[in-house]
Amino acid sequence: MNDLTVEKLGPAKIPSPINLGTEPGDLLADFVPDGKRVIADVCVDTLKKYISDGQDPPSMELAGPRQHIYFDGLKLRAGMVTCGGICPGLNNVIRGLVMTLHHGYGVKEIVGFKYGYSGLNPSIGHPTVDLNPDMVRNIHTMGGTILGTSRGPQEPKVMVDTLEKMKIGLLFTVGGDGTFRGALALHEEIRRRGLDIGIIGIPKTIDNDIALVDKTFGFETAVGLASDAIKAAYSEARSAERGIGLVKLMGRNSGFIAANAALAMRNVNLVLIPELPFDLEGDNGLYAYLGRRFDVGKSTVIVVAEGAGQRHLENLRGSDASGNVALGDIGIFLKERISSRFKGKVRFTLKYIDPSYIIRSAPACPTDAIFCGYLAQAAVHAGMSGRTAMAVGRSHSMLTHIPISALVAERKTVDPEGEMWLSVLESTGQPFYMTDNPPKELSRNSLAPQL
Amino acid sequence: MNDLTVEKLGPAKIPSPINLGTEPGDLLADFVPDGKRVIADVCVDTLKKYISDGQDPPSMELAGPRQHIYFDGLKLRAGMVTCGGICPGLNNVIRGLVMTLHHGYGVKEIVGFKYGYSGLNPSIGHPTVDLNPDMVRNIHTMGGTILGTSRGPQEPKVMVDTLEKMKIGLLFTVGGDGTFRGALALHEEIRRRGLDIGIIGIPKTIDNDIALVDKTFGFETAVGLASDAIKAAYSEARSAERGIGLVKLMGRNSGFIAANAALAMRNVNLVLIPELPFDLEGDNGLYAYLGRRFDVGKSTVIVVAEGAGQRHLENLRGSDASGNVALGDIGIFLKERISSRFKGKVRFTLKYIDPSYIIRSAPACPTDAIFCGYLAQAAVHAGMSGRTAMAVGRSHSMLTHIPISALVAERKTVDPEGEMWLSVLESTGQPFYMTDNPPKELSRNSLAPQL
Amino acid sequence: MNDLTVEKLGPAKIPSPINLGTEPGDLLADFVPDGKRVIADVCVDTLKKYISDGQDPPSMELAGPRQHIYFDGLKLRAGMVTCGGICPGLNNVIRGLVMTLHHGYGVKEIVGFKYGYSGLNPSIGHPTVDLNPDMVRNIHTMGGTILGTSRGPQEPKVMVDTLEKMKIGLLFTVGGDGTFRGALALHEEIRRRGLDIGIIGIPKTIDNDIALVDKTFGFETAVGLASDAIKAAYSEARSAERGIGLVKLMGRNSGFIAANAALAMRNVNLVLIPELPFDLEGDNGLYAYLGRRFDVGKSTVIVVAEGAGQRHLENLRGSDASGNVALGDIGIFLKERISSRFKGKVRFTLKYIDPSYIIRSAPACPTDAIFCGYLAQAAVHAGMSGRTAMAVGRSHSMLTHIPISALVAERKTVDPEGEMWLSVLESTGQPFYMTDNPPKELSRNSLAPQL
Amino acid sequence: MNDLTVEKLGPAKIPSPINLGTEPGDLLADFVPDGKRVIADVCVDTLKKYISDGQDPPSMELAGPRQHIYFDGLKLRAGMVTCGGICPGLNNVIRGLVMTLHHGYGVKEIVGFKYGYSGLNPSIGHPTVDLNPDMVRNIHTMGGTILGTSRGPQEPKVMVDTLEKMKIGLLFTVGGDGTFRGALALHEEIRRRGLDIGIIGIPKTIDNDIALVDKTFGFETAVGLASDAIKAAYSEARSAERGIGLVKLMGRNSGFIAANAALAMRNVNLVLIPELPFDLEGDNGLYAYLGRRFDVGKSTVIVVAEGAGQRHLENLRGSDASGNVALGDIGIFLKERISSRFKGKVRFTLKYIDPSYIIRSAPACPTDAIFCGYLAQAAVHAGMSGRTAMAVGRSHSMLTHIPISALVAERKTVDPEGEMWLSVLESTGQPFYMTDNPPKELSRNSLAPQL
Repeated sequence: MNDLTVEKLGPAKIPSPINLGTEPGDLLADFVPDGKRVIADVCVDTLKKYISDGQDPPSMELAGPRQHIYFDGLKLRAGMVTCGGICPGLNNVIRGLVMTLHHGYGVKEIVGFKYGYSGLNPSIGHPTVDLNPDMVRNIHTMGGTILGTSRGPQEPKVMVDTLEKMKIGLLFTVGGDGTFRGALALHEEIRRRGLDIGIIGIPKTIDNDIALVDKTFGFETAVGLASDAIKAAYSEARSAERGIGLVKLMGRNSGFIAANAALAMRNVNLVLIPELPFDLEGDNGLYAYLGRRFDVGKSTVIVVAEGAGQRHLENLRGSDASGNVALGDIGIFLKERISSRFKGKVRFTLKYIDPSYIIRSAPACPTDAIFCGYLAQAAVHAGMSGRTAMAVGRSHSMLTHIPISALVAERKTVDPEGEMWLSVLESTGQPFYMTDNPPKELSRNSLAPQL
Repeated sequence: MNDLTVEKLGPAKIPSPINLGTEPGDLLADFVPDGKRVIADVCVDTLKKYISDGQDPPSMELAGPRQHIYFDGLKLRAGMVTCGGICPGLNNVIRGLVMTLHHGYGVKEIVGFKYGYSGLNPSIGHPTVDLNPDMVRNIHTMGGTILGTSRGPQEPKVMVDTLEKMKIGLLFTVGGDGTFRGALALHEEIRRRGLDIGIIGIPKTIDNDIALVDKTFGFETAVGLASDAIKAAYSEARSAERGIGLVKLMGRNSGFIAANAALAMRNVNLVLIPELPFDLEGDNGLYAYLGRRFDVGKSTVIVVAEGAGQRHLENLRGSDASGNVALGDIGIFLKERISSRFKGKVRFTLKYIDPSYIIRSAPACPTDAIFCGYLAQAAVHAGMSGRTAMAVGRSHSMLTHIPISALVAERKTVDPEGEMWLSVLESTGQPFYMTDNPPKELSRNSLAPQL
Repeated sequence: MNDLTVEKLGPAKIPSPINLGTEPGDLLADFVPDGKRVIADVCVDTLKKYISDGQDPPSMELAGPRQHIYFDGLKLRAGMVTCGGICPGLNNVIRGLVMTLHHGYGVKEIVGFKYGYSGLNPSIGHPTVDLNPDMVRNIHTMGGTILGTSRGPQEPKVMVDTLEKMKIGLLFTVGGDGTFRGALALHEEIRRRGLDIGIIGIPKTIDNDIALVDKTFGFETAVGLASDAIKAAYSEARSAERGIGLVKLMGRNSGFIAANAALAMRNVNLVLIPELPFDLEGDNGLYAYLGRRFDVGKSTVIVVAEGAGQRHLENLRGSDASGNVALGDIGIFLKERISSRFKGKVRFTLKYIDPSYIIRSAPACPTDAIFCGYLAQAAVHAGMSGRTAMAVGRSHSMLTHIPISALVAERKTVDPEGEMWLSVLESTGQPFYMTDNPPKELSRNSLAPQL
Repeated sequence: MNDLTVEKLGPAKIPSPINLGTEPGDLLADFVPDGKRVIADVCVDTLKKYISDGQDPPSMELAGPRQHIYFDGLKLRAGMVTCGGICPGLNNVIRGLVMTLHHGYGVKEIVGFKYGYSGLNPSIGHPTVDLNPDMVRNIHTMGGTILGTSRGPQEPKVMVDTLEKMKIGLLFTVGGDGTFRGALALHEEIRRRGLDIGIIGIPKTIDNDIALVDKTFGFETAVGLASDAIKAAYSEARSAERGIGLVKLMGRNSGFIAANAALAMRNVNLVLIPELPFDLEGDNGLYAYLGRRFDVGKSTVIVVAEGAGQRHLENLRGSDASGNVALGDIGIFLKERISSRFKGKVRFTLKYIDPSYIIRSAPACPTDAIFCGYLAQAAVHAGMSGRTAMAVGRSHSMLTHIPISALVAERKTVDPEGEMWLSVLESTGQPFYMTDNPPKELSRNSLAPQL
């Protein structure tokens, strides 16, 4: 259980200014007691193993407002920063942080750092933004982030200098893997200097591949908009002789968006994800698969996650010494390879759709909007309680605190043997393997299609 | 754990026709072994109590395809019926059932009963529908149910006569509380006669108030569309002097849709739900609340769940001996009462919006579409395995089997002391209580609004 | 042609500050010369009649920026007011007026009067709003009007006192029939006092029933959203045994929204509009029509414009002396009458949908957004040129100036013998007449349905 | 007027089977008399010139059902074909043609040719599709065309052989410029052989660049969806330091979609269209323009029509002899050129969005759905009346008949000196010219921006 214990800046001695109850049954919303935890793995087998081993099963602390807090809101200056690629819901999170800091804890000084961590580097010279409820009231109707964002780290020392100089007591960082590694570095530097600054993360990855949490914000919006792109690919494919509609979706290391969007639309023939390699050539390869469909005059909808088939791009780079860097995009690669492979051999059409920027720049769908609100509230409650180096998340439908170190330790990927991928196989009827070297005999190479 | 054990028609001896693996690590999707279970309550405290009491904590069986099944798909005739009010996703469920029965298990005879349980009563004379993949391929783009639906029970004996006569071996019932009680009655009669007929339920309640499951299908679609209605109410309210936008949303016994839609939009001032009584008169009543807002010229957005404030309608019925049944709708009631109360006293406008039929008749949003697909696949796998008198659901993000008897035993309601309602209070700044007899002193009667 | 001549405050002597050309062919956008006009009636027959009578056919002046203008923008204070019910596009119009006044003509003092004409009555005491580009930049993403609105007139003398006192030189009024009558009264009073104040109208009627113009803003948005409500009614109707989906749409005096929404969806069985009376009883009445559909088990989608069948409501009021004011709404009336007529006689279901507030409070669809931009720009150009007592409109796809007196003189209605209604009859297959006293024999009482 | 006279196969002697009236005032929808015409140019100046020259102004025949028709529907076999790229509304048109042929005129044999004109070439071997009301009832909810489409012509003799052999009496061709040239060739061959086959066109160009008509179907849907892509570009641009959001929209020869989408969103900084050349280099070129924005840290939204700046691509092709065909797309070209130009010189981000396939594959928006219904009905009425070699269109809001020869004679383009482009200039504040050799002095090189 040790590894999921959250760090604290110090004891929480200040009574919370929020008007809540402590006793169940009085119909008054209650503070969340510190000891409440939910177990990480809900499988009975795992649980029994821990018990028989005499171990406590790993568990996470429940999030929520605490009866006693660490910071005095009236004296606190809080800051926030959004990092990495944009994602539906960023403005909802910003809005929620500002609203809860201001109305819940009376924090009047709220600083927004611009353009990611670069906003904490004074040598770059981005001015900061003073945030208040009026400014953020309607920002959640717009996509993107009003704070701006950027990729890449900054020197932890420089950033902590900024925090120290600006007397920031609590910093909220919204971002993904890289951002969280940066947050840990910040935290190390803060601890090294013995400063009283809390760092709270709100995990942001549109790909939904963060371990320990049910889902990340923006993911459902992304799946919904990805479905629209698939719908377009389907119309294109069906309106042409042997039409191929090829859609590239987000997913650098995992195929969650690709798989879920395919499950939402139920008219996809082939889903290619990073977790499962595929060949181009050979009896089980992509060309042979398409050839068989062409032979019977079928149209085909293909969804490819951006991280799928990367080894084909590597091979290509290997064999191309001329410094050709144009390739590297699996969507464009497949579009060009399929086109040149079948050109002149059969009448067909291929339409390629890359909706990535349209998806990630959208405002949050209602489900994500609600979720962002919860995350922001939980993040503020956690920060005000003196917790640090942790992030908020949802596990088993409950809001929890998770050490950032645990979050960055591993990533979720699509389990090729699990329920979701099985559902994809049932829906698409696609081959189990598209490679000549599968782990198993090829006699049982697909489920029946359910399109 | 006893109460969550699922009944079976008999031993599953037939090898599944589905091509799946059994060993982890071969990248081949696996059958789900019978013994896999997830615990029902994930709180560490509860868990520890069970353990210290020497009891197994309650758990649910994982859903999914089994290696051995009970029915031979090629000889089976399956049936399905949709009951109660329509709900986004019904056609997705029908489509998923037909697709999985046909493609997964080779079931070629699939019968759709029309208009709910009345379709199983031959004296009413609805013809049945033969279902196949071609018929259902695109039905999920439309709202409603292609099978039609109706409310109310039919005589179990009559219905089992029909099943027997038509040689139905497996019946899928999609519906809510009443439907499930009907399903249990069917099951009792089947058992009494010693018939070999399985009954599998897919829980349908747009209100999301079924215990033991994370959520029910259609709920997220409903929240999304409810948000649109709130957006309209907000525009109306803000465009008039002291404008009131009043929205009635679904929720007979629970305020989940009302609370969630308010959390999605973040511009609601007052949410009224069945779980929390409110007064009209008195210092803490609705009129006084509105009067205070009118005094400072504010507009107000109110969301009321259809089951809220029912005691006001009862009083009304009590005092009205003339058999006046026109009332009974809390939305229209509030609209008329507020209007007559303030008419002539202050310049104000009240616009009343009832989007219920627009919401429930919509096609499923992508998240619900995915969910319906999972439920349908899990229901077929369960039915083919010989399980009966059970329903499929999602608990802690995993698909599970739950005895229907356990599902109808209790209902979820909004916990006024829990995380969700706290979030509503934080967002609306509405009074904790709108009654003169609250459990606690009134000095701490609201959180600060975060609108 | 006289009646379409636009009034002017005086000669336009100031060179326009806008950088435009005057010569065709230089690729530089041009000022619009004063003499350019488009004919009002494009039918060759009408045209020939005018010519043979030696008359000029009626024509309208083209809108657009003039090379010389009347007001010096730097010295001008402009005002604007939105009146009547809200309508998609109001904020687009406000935004466009402010942007063009400010950026095009350098007008820095722009006053928004709150809540319709009541904002011009100081005894009511609404504060005014100072408008500028920053304030209005994103308002078009929201429905309603940021200025607020109200119904009803105010005393012209009081309002002109306000304009005079506040030194308003140019007032933009956005509204319908009543608003324009108010604008004419304002103009009369201004002229009586010999003031130098221009009044420019932007016609607003979601019903699209203003004569001389192709369409009014908000109408296409309304038709689009009305289609969604019809889609819901269709799902409800098809999901129940003999289901009726009844939708009430806007249209006090004309059935344009009802007819167009039915044409967009193509799944409506009956459209009832104010222009065509219908009976309830009798062989050709509504009950008999529904009875025939019930006999063959059909579902029915009915769209009724709010102004249809008003004589039934009058009769009702006449026969009901008890002061029962609950009725008066044709949608609720039909819902209750149909329900009570067939209750107990046949199994059927009726679902009633009234989407009016959801429709009118929506933000403008892209087509309307573009249109509102044009109208606002044209209105400012007209006002700055010294024109007054006129409105801007689109006729034959061109922006024109129309005297307000001409606009309020007549209203457009659906021509029961014209192209649009024919298209409705072709699509619905509904009876030509639903009355026992039709102008023609009943043998030819409908076209074949095309649903 | 000669050039707008429509050809006929022969005298219309058969009474129409449609139940319509002929007298105004009887509330019965009327047949449209043959002589009714609308003038083509509505400007009073043009009109006066014709009259003073003693000429009739050009006019177009009104569309609609005729009292007497040429073909006996019960004996007719009709055919239809969709050609070129897909466009929102194709299925609405197909549906409308089938419904009106079947229900209006009793035509029971309706043949759909697959994949454009290639479906009329038996050597390619596409089977035909028998169309009927049941098949087409719900197709308008899907994008694309159920008949499939393809580009390119086929030999007229071969196609007429097919029509003759299949006894097709009336062929509807839905397509653009090329399709219509093909239709004229078909018509010539039919006339040469003295066959009794009518050819009716329904103009399809998502670009809206067909002369003589107000607009073409699919255009409004395209503008609406293009707005969404611009919204995404805006979010991307605003969320990054010096963010550029670059959107490529359809428009080979005209900038109508680009200009209108920019006018709908009002947050575009630069619209580049085929009608107006632009430089990359030089003081007025694109790089200098961006450089000035970068200097002040501004984000920029650029919309480029696909046909804009083609001369840059030509130069490129000229200088690259290696057969490099990757370029030729102005969107990708600008993305790469801007990126390489500023890379390393300034911190900026460029996100490129190409939504073309998402747009053109969408189902029709309500306005387009209505319009497609009108066009299809008018096309059938025209064809049944014996008219041929003509297309239906909407001019001055009325449905008309236009000879195909007149339609293909010229194309509409955006008038750089007209109302629409002026509105774009007012909204974007972009330079009048982006070239060093403008027709006018550069001192007046832009309007003030209204973003």
